[in-house]
Amino acid sequence: MCFYTGRYASSHGAQWNNFPLRVGEHTLGDHLRRAGMECWLLGKTHMKADAEGMVRLGLSPDSTIGARQAECGFDAWIRDDGLWGQGPDGFYDERRSPYNEYLRSKDYPSQNPWADFANAGLDGDQIASGWFFANSDRAANIREEDSETPWLTTQTIDFMEKNDGPWLAHVSYIKPHWPYIVPAPYHDMYGVSHVMAPLRHEAERHNPHPVYGAYMQNRIAAAFQQDKVRNKVIPAYMGLIKQCDDQLGRLLDHLERTDRWHDTMIVLTSDHGDYLGDHWLGEKELFHEQSVKVPLIIFDPRTEADGTRGTTCEALVESIDLAATFVEAAGGEVPSHIIEGRSLMPWMRGETPKWRDFAISEYDYSATPQAVALGVAPKDARLFMVFDGRYKLIHAEGGLGHLLFDLRDDPNEFYDLSGSDSHDDIVDRLYGHLAQWGRRLSQRVTRSDADIAAMRGKSLRKGILPFLVDGNEVDEDLTQFYRGKAPADFTKGE
Amino acid sequence: MCFYTGRYASSHGAQWNNFPLRVGEHTLGDHLRRAGMECWLLGKTHMKADAEGMVRLGLSPDSTIGARQAECGFDAWIRDDGLWGQGPDGFYDERRSPYNEYLRSKDYPSQNPWADFANAGLDGDQIASGWFFANSDRAANIREEDSETPWLTTQTIDFMEKNDGPWLAHVSYIKPHWPYIVPAPYHDMYGVSHVMAPLRHEAERHNPHPVYGAYMQNRIAAAFQQDKVRNKVIPAYMGLIKQCDDQLGRLLDHLERTDRWHDTMIVLTSDHGDYLGDHWLGEKELFHEQSVKVPLIIFDPRTEADGTRGTTCEALVESIDLAATFVEAAGGEVPSHIIEGRSLMPWMRGETPKWRDFAISEYDYSATPQAVALGVAPKDARLFMVFDGRYKLIHAEGGLGHLLFDLRDDPNEFYDLSGSDSHDDIVDRLYGHLAQWGRRLSQRVTRSDADIAAMRGKSLRKGILPFLVDGNEVDEDLTQFYRGKAPADFTKGE
Repeated sequence: MCFYTGRYASSHGAQWNNFPLRVGEHTLGDHLRRAGMECWLLGKTHMKADAEGMVRLGLSPDSTIGARQAECGFDAWIRDDGLWGQGPDGFYDERRSPYNEYLRSKDYPSQNPWADFANAGLDGDQIASGWFFANSDRAANIREEDSETPWLTTQTIDFMEKNDGPWLAHVSYIKPHWPYIVPAPYHDMYGVSHVMAPLRHEAERHNPHPVYGAYMQNRIAAAFQQDKVRNKVIPAYMGLIKQCDDQLGRLLDHLERTDRWHDTMIVLTSDHGDYLGDHWLGEKELFHEQSVKVPLIIFDPRTEADGTRGTTCEALVESIDLAATFVEAAGGEVPSHIIEGRSLMPWMRGETPKWRDFAISEYDYSATPQAVALGVAPKDARLFMVFDGRYKLIHAEGGLGHLLFDLRDDPNEFYDLSGSDSHDDIVDRLYGHLAQWGRRLSQRVTRSDADIAAMRGKSLRKGILPFLVDGNEVDEDLTQFYRGKAPADFTKGE
Repeated sequence: MCFYTGRYASSHGAQWNNFPLRVGEHTLGDHLRRAGMECWLLGKTHMKADAEGMVRLGLSPDSTIGARQAECGFDAWIRDDGLWGQGPDGFYDERRSPYNEYLRSKDYPSQNPWADFANAGLDGDQIASGWFFANSDRAANIREEDSETPWLTTQTIDFMEKNDGPWLAHVSYIKPHWPYIVPAPYHDMYGVSHVMAPLRHEAERHNPHPVYGAYMQNRIAAAFQQDKVRNKVIPAYMGLIKQCDDQLGRLLDHLERTDRWHDTMIVLTSDHGDYLGDHWLGEKELFHEQSVKVPLIIFDPRTEADGTRGTTCEALVESIDLAATFVEAAGGEVPSHIIEGRSLMPWMRGETPKWRDFAISEYDYSATPQAVALGVAPKDARLFMVFDGRYKLIHAEGGLGHLLFDLRDDPNEFYDLSGSDSHDDIVDRLYGHLAQWGRRLSQRVTRSDADIAAMRGKSLRKGILPFLVDGNEVDEDLTQFYRGKAPADFTKGE
């Protein structure tokens, strides 16, 4: 939602999976369409519509406006959230799955071929579900070209053939998301010898911060603390990534073949990293670099970007910056009273703009077992990260204190310095940044700075004249409607 | 807007006059109607509709939903914002004025009888406009019963006769708002002898905080620093208030006569105070008690409130608490993920709930000449007050520093202590409250705490089973859809 709105999580409020984005929140689609660019979704988004808010405002999901509200501002070319799990309480996601429909059209004999073929291997003649790590080294029981990543690539090529644009296409691959299983030849392209040792340290387990401690003890962490799990999962994970690379190659080849290289900007990123056992953790929670630092590669074909081609930008870039970047790339003006991120285009052009001094990341763990384990109220189950390029402060609400890492002296983030008095000044400084950020202007979305400048003094010329002693203080034309002969006298009574 | 939403200004974003309240923002009307209570507006509101947002969402102001969005969640029985000023650039407010229509129907011979009669006196046969302080001691050229306050009272009685309810009626008098002029007999009921000396001190003018300094130098302050202005304005102001008192009496008599005393809760309050020359200031800006401390009288007819009748509550109550109070009074449940205020009903019942430790007030002066004079960017032209019952810290964004008052030792707030090192700990403590408040959860409006608790663990029973080694870790029914004979084998290629 931060990518889609260009706003911080606590500004847009959809802070976790299945927290609906409130109706009316401005999205990239709103801004781009205003700048003359279409905005399409292909693949996965976990955007949850604010169905209650839509009913309250009388918006039907069948209308164009309603559909965009329900799809986070995108026009959905093909949406498939890619999690077609089924259990005793039914399907996790009750929408239609274009991907499952595709597989059925290809004669995969199942009501849920996503589960039975794309995300399962074979154990003899038995289903070996990719949900279970024990099966992650098996080949998925599917033709490679029918698996999720090639399928979405084919859809994207089809989209590009049918739409001249200008458009933004959010091509959103579900993989390498779990279930961790990949078809041949990717399933055995990597093996145990490719699995790096986990980056973790015994010091981390000694009296850890309570939230970190709770996460180290959960089911995910317990799994990834085991070599047998890592040795099964990571080669499959690498295979899934290699498949993504290859499919990205297909997309790039298509752009080259159709001569659209020169006018297509390409941005590759991800919404989170993955611990995979580092720091005794699994998955994507918390703020170590493994989780919070995501890839971001921007290819801008324009000559203005030639000077920075192939270079790396070390600035404190945030996910919210992409929305601003895309609005500028589309030729629009970034509405800085709505989008909190900043356009990266100056960096692309080799400029060195005055930039933010600290990056923020937020995490709401209210819906997790960790919040229950810690006895933290939902409103307090929130974490904030402030990083100034060297020091990283993590602040936990609910009186749960801080973590502090010095990434220059401790790039692996093994040693929490928050308990050391000698770092009080650093904690104070970073906490001050966080306090200032907390008071940021994020909701004045109906008035731009320019609107405000234009408001100043306007009422005077529309007859609002308070605080004059006798009217002679201002030009005569301002008081013209308040002078003259009285049309009647009512002061004497009836 | 804080009263109407039960949310802080920086949560709802409509931080100043004519900053539209964003479409979809939850209002008192939404909450009350859900609890089975109507929500009506009579009189003034400076709510500005988010016309752009309504167009974006396809909402017509003519529809019921659209009209409520445009009227801040109220059904408008009769809306009249009461500022029918006219100048060379036209009318300040381009809506229709029911009050002007009423006056014309009563044969006041003018296109704008609000200006020519209700808010003007006579100087011989000439209009003596109430806009000018020099005329404030004249009688308004209108029959008293036709002036604004009696007119709205009559409208309210008419409303009550036609609507059985249950309803909330926001009866919003424009007066004693400027223009300062009142009809006989109120115009000479008070005189110079009733004007108290201004509460101000030379110490305040010595090296003041830059924002305070800028306000002390504006046109409003300059006017109210003069005795000749105060001596003209304050008697008229007192007359206007006495007229309000008398008209409130009419309303109360009507309730008594119609036997609605026993089931009508009455709340009297105001949206700001007035300096009237105190602290060298005029009007309502900044955070001295004259401005920020408003009257709040609640009459609850129920026996549960008998124990506190006639008593005063010293708790740190905020304007946002009223919305919560009204929802509880209507029998609804206060949606604490949307309404940030807290119901006052426990205090009414004589309970002593655990309460907030500090009160917050906010002020956005971006559209004022003071922001221009100080060279402050619109986003930084904001002030925050934190008050713990004794100390009051005022924090100015944009690096403009603090003010600190000790209301126990300096109840008149003459001495800014922020420059004194001996108060560093107090500043730190209050600033810490402000920082915590800044990170409050204010935008997660689509998920309640109860929703979040209900989300926990639900996905497991809907087939989302990550982080299992072989599936034997969980009950067999959870994995039933991921086991069994494979329907086909695609692993061998075509």
